[in-house]
Amino acid sequence: MKAFIYLGPSKKAVEDRPKPDIAAPTDAIVRITKTTICGTDLHILKGDVPTCQPGRILGHEGVGVIDKIGPAVTAFKAGDRVLISCISACGKCAYCRRQMYSHCTTGGWILGNTIDGTQAEFVRIPYADTSLYPIPDGADEEALVMLSDILPTGFECGVLNGRVQPGGNVAIVGAGPIGLAALLTAQFYTPAEIIMVDLDDNRLAAAKRFGATKTVNSADGGAVASILAMTGGRGVDTAIEAVGIPATFELCEKIVAPGGTIANIGVHGIKVDLHLENLWSRNITITTRLVDTVSTPMLLNTVQSRKIDPRQLITHRFKFDKILDAYETFGHAADTKALKVIIEAR
Amino acid sequence: MKAFIYLGPSKKAVEDRPKPDIAAPTDAIVRITKTTICGTDLHILKGDVPTCQPGRILGHEGVGVIDKIGPAVTAFKAGDRVLISCISACGKCAYCRRQMYSHCTTGGWILGNTIDGTQAEFVRIPYADTSLYPIPDGADEEALVMLSDILPTGFECGVLNGRVQPGGNVAIVGAGPIGLAALLTAQFYTPAEIIMVDLDDNRLAAAKRFGATKTVNSADGGAVASILAMTGGRGVDTAIEAVGIPATFELCEKIVAPGGTIANIGVHGIKVDLHLENLWSRNITITTRLVDTVSTPMLLNTVQSRKIDPRQLITHRFKFDKILDAYETFGHAADTKALKVIIEAR
Amino acid sequence: MKAFIYLGPSKKAVEDRPKPDIAAPTDAIVRITKTTICGTDLHILKGDVPTCQPGRILGHEGVGVIDKIGPAVTAFKAGDRVLISCISACGKCAYCRRQMYSHCTTGGWILGNTIDGTQAEFVRIPYADTSLYPIPDGADEEALVMLSDILPTGFECGVLNGRVQPGGNVAIVGAGPIGLAALLTAQFYTPAEIIMVDLDDNRLAAAKRFGATKTVNSADGGAVASILAMTGGRGVDTAIEAVGIPATFELCEKIVAPGGTIANIGVHGIKVDLHLENLWSRNITITTRLVDTVSTPMLLNTVQSRKIDPRQLITHRFKFDKILDAYETFGHAADTKALKVIIEAR
Amino acid sequence: MKAFIYLGPSKKAVEDRPKPDIAAPTDAIVRITKTTICGTDLHILKGDVPTCQPGRILGHEGVGVIDKIGPAVTAFKAGDRVLISCISACGKCAYCRRQMYSHCTTGGWILGNTIDGTQAEFVRIPYADTSLYPIPDGADEEALVMLSDILPTGFECGVLNGRVQPGGNVAIVGAGPIGLAALLTAQFYTPAEIIMVDLDDNRLAAAKRFGATKTVNSADGGAVASILAMTGGRGVDTAIEAVGIPATFELCEKIVAPGGTIANIGVHGIKVDLHLENLWSRNITITTRLVDTVSTPMLLNTVQSRKIDPRQLITHRFKFDKILDAYETFGHAADTKALKVIIEAR
Repeated sequence: MKAFIYLGPSKKAVEDRPKPDIAAPTDAIVRITKTTICGTDLHILKGDVPTCQPGRILGHEGVGVIDKIGPAVTAFKAGDRVLISCISACGKCAYCRRQMYSHCTTGGWILGNTIDGTQAEFVRIPYADTSLYPIPDGADEEALVMLSDILPTGFECGVLNGRVQPGGNVAIVGAGPIGLAALLTAQFYTPAEIIMVDLDDNRLAAAKRFGATKTVNSADGGAVASILAMTGGRGVDTAIEAVGIPATFELCEKIVAPGGTIANIGVHGIKVDLHLENLWSRNITITTRLVDTVSTPMLLNTVQSRKIDPRQLITHRFKFDKILDAYETFGHAADTKALKVIIEAR
Repeated sequence: MKAFIYLGPSKKAVEDRPKPDIAAPTDAIVRITKTTICGTDLHILKGDVPTCQPGRILGHEGVGVIDKIGPAVTAFKAGDRVLISCISACGKCAYCRRQMYSHCTTGGWILGNTIDGTQAEFVRIPYADTSLYPIPDGADEEALVMLSDILPTGFECGVLNGRVQPGGNVAIVGAGPIGLAALLTAQFYTPAEIIMVDLDDNRLAAAKRFGATKTVNSADGGAVASILAMTGGRGVDTAIEAVGIPATFELCEKIVAPGGTIANIGVHGIKVDLHLENLWSRNITITTRLVDTVSTPMLLNTVQSRKIDPRQLITHRFKFDKILDAYETFGHAADTKALKVIIEAR
Repeated sequence: MKAFIYLGPSKKAVEDRPKPDIAAPTDAIVRITKTTICGTDLHILKGDVPTCQPGRILGHEGVGVIDKIGPAVTAFKAGDRVLISCISACGKCAYCRRQMYSHCTTGGWILGNTIDGTQAEFVRIPYADTSLYPIPDGADEEALVMLSDILPTGFECGVLNGRVQPGGNVAIVGAGPIGLAALLTAQFYTPAEIIMVDLDDNRLAAAKRFGATKTVNSADGGAVASILAMTGGRGVDTAIEAVGIPATFELCEKIVAPGGTIANIGVHGIKVDLHLENLWSRNITITTRLVDTVSTPMLLNTVQSRKIDPRQLITHRFKFDKILDAYETFGHAADTKALKVIIEAR
Repeated sequence: MKAFIYLGPSKKAVEDRPKPDIAAPTDAIVRITKTTICGTDLHILKGDVPTCQPGRILGHEGVGVIDKIGPAVTAFKAGDRVLISCISACGKCAYCRRQMYSHCTTGGWILGNTIDGTQAEFVRIPYADTSLYPIPDGADEEALVMLSDILPTGFECGVLNGRVQPGGNVAIVGAGPIGLAALLTAQFYTPAEIIMVDLDDNRLAAAKRFGATKTVNSADGGAVASILAMTGGRGVDTAIEAVGIPATFELCEKIVAPGGTIANIGVHGIKVDLHLENLWSRNITITTRLVDTVSTPMLLNTVQSRKIDPRQLITHRFKFDKILDAYETFGHAADTKALKVIIEAR
């Protein structure tokens, strides 16, 4: 089968690989119909993710059709259409029992990282019963690709951890795909204000279309003052960090109101300064989280009942044999205005 | 009346001052029967608390007897015995409505800070109805002095924010009076382990008597390894920071388990390093809080029903005319083994 | 001044009464600009509310202008436009401290019940600082009349207690004004389905316009079967009872899913059968609540940010001198299709 | 092998049965070392549990040693000592994902009910990885038998659902084994008062030894008045129903304070009267629950750290060949003063 391979820093290729087979009784083999590219895949290609070794098939998102199941799989059968979770969950370990699937002792984020992923014709999915979700009849498959990772990540790490509430105010720092996923799902809780912060006016314009009530371009250094002015000097109840660098996290420290929450989504490579000399007495909460995908069934319900349309995030579509073009487009988002790209089989 | 006065960095004296009078209809004048000294008072004397200006009567803890009430006070009358909260709460502002009395827009921590405090024969208490608590018949007044600040601080900022749970494990970094108050109140929730960390073996011995299941002297640099070994390599569900310096906060970052909480109590003077490069994916929560004293009625219940004995924290007693000696003793705790000192009227 | 008076079962009149005056330092006198009629007022007129004695001025909803304040009122001054809460809260008692204003030991629902109410030119409001809310500049006063009682009641007793969640399903039994207020505010949490149940097709049609995803006319006895069919046989996560009779409560018992909640809003006059022989093992929660109006500031935010339009509930408008006509119209809602009626000064 | 069999109403026997074998890849066969009898077993013997048919081996509690595992079992191997949960959980269905194992679509309470149970030499345990727990080295096996059902039931259905809090007050109606399990585990949260209510002075005396602060014999009809007097007229924050008849549930309705919770544990055979005419405005919560055993790991921690001693509940011990005597003793608890009986292999 054809597969997209990470070959070491800045090296990648589409190569022929053997079709995967069942390795454990709880495995399923899934034929991929649609997949996508994540910002994390770009980090891997730069060589920034040491757990992912050269030779790996990338990809941890997608939908497909069950090709084959192991003898202990009971929830699916060959031919079933399925949504693939970016997190593999054994369903049995102490973390899975607490619904912290991200920290599953034998799973977690392994797809396209420590085992081969979804940017291929077929993929082996461990713990199929607890890591795949049935696709309801009539569901839009492109929309559901957004549920593998980006929507649960924005929702769980940003919105749920950030305790977004009706009538509250929210700032989301970073209007990339993850920040926009937080924006879409924050609206489940009807906050009074959602202020979107970014350096790119294009993305801020997209944010306005997706429901932001206000936008702030932070290029001029005036973001803190603007946001405080927008909130009567008080700051925001929820600050969602969706970039992953010290400057944006420290911006969140300056705009969070007493009693508020900073919910970190960003993947950070270095430490940040935590100004406890200001914050120790301000009754704030800071949270971090690798997505658990525990909200996937709920998100499926909201998509099926048309409360949210994740297809808004999709800007480009490619056939699988053009996946290198897809990476080019996604990798130059400032120019191409790409948010999420869909890669289709055939 | 006699009062203990802050006269500027390293300067203090007992002076004669006029007895305070009602200034607003919601005020009460309280005759102090017992008060104490807080670590914060020592910070003020060093000149570290710029809101507190020379000439101020210090003290934000104590019990006493109502001498006089303003015309809008309805919950108390002259002669009532009362517990004074370190936090003054108007009961009306948006923060008070959310039970965040610490951030009351016209109150908060003002006693012995921006208005005269309790280390005197009499004190004026603003918002008496929502800042004083009736002392039940038969209650031990010394025990209740511990409820002005130290017990609610340990409990709200450490135990409640740290989400201590039955069967969980807890580390408390810092075995001073506040850390020990967290230790006493953590036992309300029956954690399986409470590991106390300090540099002073005396205080660790006290911690053992107060219910710590394990102790770690962090002087040798091996605290992280010891605590991880004690928890099967996993770390603690709750790490309570009760010191207020970067080293102890950063120790908490290293020992918190995935899914766990760091609850900061310490008063920090400078920033700390937050290692998000490690923590971004560990599903942790960090909280800060200035005590709201919202738990005072509950703590009164636990003292009255003998579930906790706060007198354990009291090591020394002085008459008010020896308050300078009391400061000496409390200020040299490593030598005197002082935890809390009681200062009695007359 | 003119006032609407309850004169005993089935007797009512508009009479001249002296203008009220400040009776306690925490009182305010409010000149009413708009008020409305509640279903509870009809119950009083039937003689069903023994706490409300003949001679009483009715009404516990409205907006107005501060005419005069007592000496302990600090949050308002003469001329301020204010929203009147149906619940008077002292802000000091143990219940108010827990935000259970409904059970304030000297307040609660007293307006138009045990003290004179808002269906008059002026009303005395006790505990003004904690029972009135400032009206923001530019706010629509008619919309805000809906925030005195009906919106917080639907929201707190139905939606919050019922734990409405994104992606969940909800049934609201009773499409009167309170049930519709629950319907409007349930949408703050983006449930997948909101099924409205009533006997009146007119009200069900209104429910559809207000956001119900499905409606069920329960006249034919098939409501349980219909609702189970709509939910894949599982039942609803949240069943909100907004009528107050045994038949509707027992309907909720039959449609609640395992793990679900029955949130009672209805004012019940007699006991109901609780079928614990079926429910003991179904992990359900049943809640009751007299509105606390603790959500009023949040609801003001959602109205101001145009997330909800409570004016949808207003079907008729009358000048105060036509208040008897207003009662006629509201009292014959099946014929007049009245939901809420606005009564304006002058 | 020998097994205790239900043969139809009032008929029971010890019979020879074939040793069970693996039927699904997720099964384990466990050799029972210790088991016990539950009140539910007595109900089955009376013919009150229609799901349990004649010919069934009873028993849903116990500890043992793994004899054999199915090919998909990964957490255990032959020879491992295990605690058996009364609830079988597939770990995959929508209910298991929400930690509502009691409603597992292919599991739940099936042991000794719809499949053969633990009162035998061997038992087949479905979903072994998610329905068994490893016994820590050095653990007391008798204590752990109490963790199969009675302790999680008292804790989850009574204490957790009843929101027992530090400083609060609790009444537990029914001092049988389940009520006493609630009493033991309520102390995890340090309530100020735990009032135990029963008709049997023996059991009330046991309750005092186990930590009740007050006891009430309800035989004389004065229980409501006594409990209100003990709580300053206010009632209790938490009322736990541990009997299962209308009189005891309705007693709970009369003693619950405004804002309080009635947590039902009792297995009810008929409906009860819910006095909503009194309760609609009292802001109360009523909960029901079949135990989920989600707290088993936490309870293991508290037993291992000696925070609770479940052996206190054990009054009698029998070898398996005397199991009919064990039933006699347990079935006449008023005379024998039996709480829990241990039945040992061989």
